[in-house]
Amino acid sequence: MSKFWSPAVRALTPYVPGEQPREQLIKLNTNENPYPPAPGVEAVLRDYPADHLRRYPDPDSRALREALAEEFGVEVEQVFVGNGSDEVLALAFQAFFRHDRPVEMPAISYSFYPVYCRLYEVERRVHDLDDQWRVDLSAFGNDSGGVIFANPNAPTGHGHGRQAIAGLLERVTEPVVLVDEAYVDFGGESAVPLVERFPNLLVTGTFSKSRSLAGLRLGYAVGSRELIEGLERVKNSFNSYPVDSLASTVGIAALADHEHFEACREAVITTRERTRGHLETLGFQVLPSLTNFLLVTHPGFDAAQLFVGLRERGVLVRHFNTQALRDHLRISVGTDDEMETLIETLEDLCR
Amino acid sequence: MSKFWSPAVRALTPYVPGEQPREQLIKLNTNENPYPPAPGVEAVLRDYPADHLRRYPDPDSRALREALAEEFGVEVEQVFVGNGSDEVLALAFQAFFRHDRPVEMPAISYSFYPVYCRLYEVERRVHDLDDQWRVDLSAFGNDSGGVIFANPNAPTGHGHGRQAIAGLLERVTEPVVLVDEAYVDFGGESAVPLVERFPNLLVTGTFSKSRSLAGLRLGYAVGSRELIEGLERVKNSFNSYPVDSLASTVGIAALADHEHFEACREAVITTRERTRGHLETLGFQVLPSLTNFLLVTHPGFDAAQLFVGLRERGVLVRHFNTQALRDHLRISVGTDDEMETLIETLEDLCR
Repeated sequence: MSKFWSPAVRALTPYVPGEQPREQLIKLNTNENPYPPAPGVEAVLRDYPADHLRRYPDPDSRALREALAEEFGVEVEQVFVGNGSDEVLALAFQAFFRHDRPVEMPAISYSFYPVYCRLYEVERRVHDLDDQWRVDLSAFGNDSGGVIFANPNAPTGHGHGRQAIAGLLERVTEPVVLVDEAYVDFGGESAVPLVERFPNLLVTGTFSKSRSLAGLRLGYAVGSRELIEGLERVKNSFNSYPVDSLASTVGIAALADHEHFEACREAVITTRERTRGHLETLGFQVLPSLTNFLLVTHPGFDAAQLFVGLRERGVLVRHFNTQALRDHLRISVGTDDEMETLIETLEDLCR
Repeated sequence: MSKFWSPAVRALTPYVPGEQPREQLIKLNTNENPYPPAPGVEAVLRDYPADHLRRYPDPDSRALREALAEEFGVEVEQVFVGNGSDEVLALAFQAFFRHDRPVEMPAISYSFYPVYCRLYEVERRVHDLDDQWRVDLSAFGNDSGGVIFANPNAPTGHGHGRQAIAGLLERVTEPVVLVDEAYVDFGGESAVPLVERFPNLLVTGTFSKSRSLAGLRLGYAVGSRELIEGLERVKNSFNSYPVDSLASTVGIAALADHEHFEACREAVITTRERTRGHLETLGFQVLPSLTNFLLVTHPGFDAAQLFVGLRERGVLVRHFNTQALRDHLRISVGTDDEMETLIETLEDLCR
């Protein structure tokens, strides 16, 4: 603690991201895509005139927003972009959730949400998952300061269909409902088509997972014009140009390649289901997943010990040391070869 | 106004950055460097493996911070990096200035500071410049919630020497003193060597001006370990990876090329002084500048009309429509050719 810190900063408990190890490991801990970005990305880097970098970016990121608007079939005024979906989420907390009333969220979801609550001094009300570890949509009320959850949810992998989300929005009309779709492209159903009907719906997404661009920091939100304008107001009071010129150009190239996108996500889904079968054969209980990760537990082995054993053998997965999750491991879906090594290593460990 | 916006967001007055025009203009409005970034930047783009982008960046930006630490002769724990110095400033407001006591700043300085005050609900106390439009360091007290000013100051161009800053810090020891050195490389004297002596000194800087990388969004802060830790705490509660992998690699390449850096800043300084002479010949009053811009006024011509006349003739400068600045134009220093066109155009307009 330093006497120079603001009172709010003393009370912070920062988010701890998954490790980015320096040594060579099979890295299945931060849900990165095992496949490279679209070939057009490489072409952008080769051809980008370095001299362009001396100019500020377009503060409105118009070109990237237009590309996203076309992709989603909405108007450009319904699209917001930021430095990764984490920044978009943080700005959304400021824009919509800084109220006297608490924000509602599932007890198990993306662990950055409670961190934002502390940063922006927002109270939160959490709801348990249902008995199948699904987000309990019926728990959210119409009187809160906001609703936020990931769909598909992390780290459980379960996703609600669009009909279920529409049902929630028919009932919860007063607070902003933020649906975080970081993982939607691996089998989930997007709520984006609902934004025309529900002005309080904000859907966020990222280029980090299905577009293989985690290193570039590109995220977005889609919603009604009034919600997007709220985000713009906060962004323009925080940082005029959060999306750099090069990242914007790369993002547009990635969006343009539908074929590569489909091939990568199908490969991830196929590998996920094959891995799930192998894990079940080893005695793991594996939650059904619509994402690029699997949440698993083994009745005969301690998850923390498995985590350590895997790491010692060169395979890095994620273990969350919380009450609710300490019996589980979250395993990102890598290539077939990587998952084969994972399974072989687990065969050794679970013998 | 939308009923979904947080109360704080309704009260915001966002910062308005200088225009990024789509048409071809001689662009002297946002203090960009007229020279390209170091040749090593182009090499990084050509050679960067696109596949690296599928991984998250190092959340600690260790390599870039090490390069900056070496450049400044400090420890890596004394360096913070962010998505442009605007983000660094915003995080510093949260980390150090969110107090009951007001933050002190000059009445004329970077116009983003009052925007941050509104975003973080921090009261401010402003002090007039002295009779030569210099920041009045004697006005800052030891009882405030923080002190912030640009040195050299924007948009006036005047800079205090290191001795004057040390004098301030000998007297003002309780609040954090943030010295924003966005423009220091064009003739100013950096306060970075003072961070060892004064634990409440935070110096911020940017790659946007003297490193010709405005499009890439790289900024930094140098200070005591406790101040840097405060910034890290806020950053890790906001966005784990604000600096993307590619930007970080480019930044390191830019820092490495001292020869290019010296050549560009000397060219800017030479052109600035030549332009100043020409403007004075045309009857302009030109404030002495240690930056890459000139703040000018003409007793015989209206600044707003000159701004419009210049734009119609293809030269874009900056006019701030505020009480204090409306008689002035801020003119970024471009290439010799660009400044020659500026002078010829002004000769026409001021005939």
